Amino acid sequence: MSQKSEQGTLYVISAPSGAGKTSLVAEMLKADEKLGVSVSHTTRPMRAGEQDGVNYHFVSRADFEAMINRGDFLEHADVFGNYYGTSQVWVRETLAQGQDVILEIDWQGAEQVRRQMPDCVGIFIVPPSPETLKARLTGRGTDTREVVERRLNEAADECSHAGEFDYLVVNDDFAVALADLLAIVRCHRLRMQAQQARYSGLLIRLSERH
Amino acid sequence: MSQKSEQGTLYVISAPSGAGKTSLVAEMLKADEKLGVSVSHTTRPMRAGEQDGVNYHFVSRADFEAMINRGDFLEHADVFGNYYGTSQVWVRETLAQGQDVILEIDWQGAEQVRRQMPDCVGIFIVPPSPETLKARLTGRGTDTREVVERRLNEAADECSHAGEFDYLVVNDDFAVALADLLAIVRCHRLRMQAQQARYSGLLIRLSERH
Repeated sequence: MSQKSEQGTLYVISAPSGAGKTSLVAEMLKADEKLGVSVSHTTRPMRAGEQDGVNYHFVSRADFEAMINRGDFLEHADVFGNYYGTSQVWVRETLAQGQDVILEIDWQGAEQVRRQMPDCVGIFIVPPSPETLKARLTGRGTDTREVVERRLNEAADECSHAGEFDYLVVNDDFAVALADLLAIVRCHRLRMQAQQARYSGLLIRLSERH
Repeated sequence: MSQKSEQGTLYVISAPSGAGKTSLVAEMLKADEKLGVSVSHTTRPMRAGEQDGVNYHFVSRADFEAMINRGDFLEHADVFGNYYGTSQVWVRETLAQGQDVILEIDWQGAEQVRRQMPDCVGIFIVPPSPETLKARLTGRGTDTREVVERRLNEAADECSHAGEFDYLVVNDDFAVALADLLAIVRCHRLRMQAQQARYSGLLIRLSERH
């Protein structure tokens, strides 16, 4: 049983905010120890309670721009004046070790990743109805109408790109959605190419005539 | 939520005899009511305890050959002078109703089906070692050496075609192999194209700007 050429799978998971993506990914990581999540780089200041290398890799603007110029990022974006990006090196090294990697990014990041790693698997998560989404994004009613509207329109924009992904998971019942996500991961590990790498010796021996 | 264009998936499952395919498929059908298995047509005589339309559709040689000439079969084979075949009509109608269909056939049948229905999903099941296979195929030692050797060589031939399938499931632990098979089915139901047919209304409403 050779593990040599076993290669992990890159999962790109996107969703409108309010779909429950972050909680679902957290549970996926707990349920499956062969899954890892990429820690992004950012130039935004560290907040209380955050740890460098855990929540983000906190770097200076100059360092981030040097990384962009070296082509270090699989995807990056400038969000309200702060950079966010996914390191190419870490992702490729982790996949080469046979680990699966999850990236939690938006549709624009997903598009960048797809261009560089066409074998990645895209999953889009949606809430079960626009009403659920609205209720979750409206929050406690303490936000201004403008803020709520911006959020709703961002969510609508994100959802309009669902069709660019390979799978759609509807987060109506949390446990069902989690089982759906884990089934996608399990299924991809059973693909012939991945299994041939894992079981090359077995397949050769089973095919030997007597 | 429109069910109109929802189309089932055709699973072609092959394995050397002794891999546990038949028991696994029986459990899949029990676990998942949206899965159906195709009942083959055959010209071999009905055996005691068998029922027409349940175990097989028993037809005459003349009727079978007329069906071949009409192109009624998705795949068919002549095995030791008896015909066996899978009806195209039943499979296509069942898939059109949104049901998934399993065909339990050998690699040659799988090749015929792949040519006519390239969207089918091929799954190959193997035992965990050649020793397990040999022990299962040798049986109680009442068969002649020739019979056992023929069986082993048939199994080896079958296994040499594993690479033509989309997925490989290793039946070491029955429960794990069953969960693998069910994960493949669950995963395929989550593919974007299938989900877009199921949730077209939801996706449109989620993408509407405010």
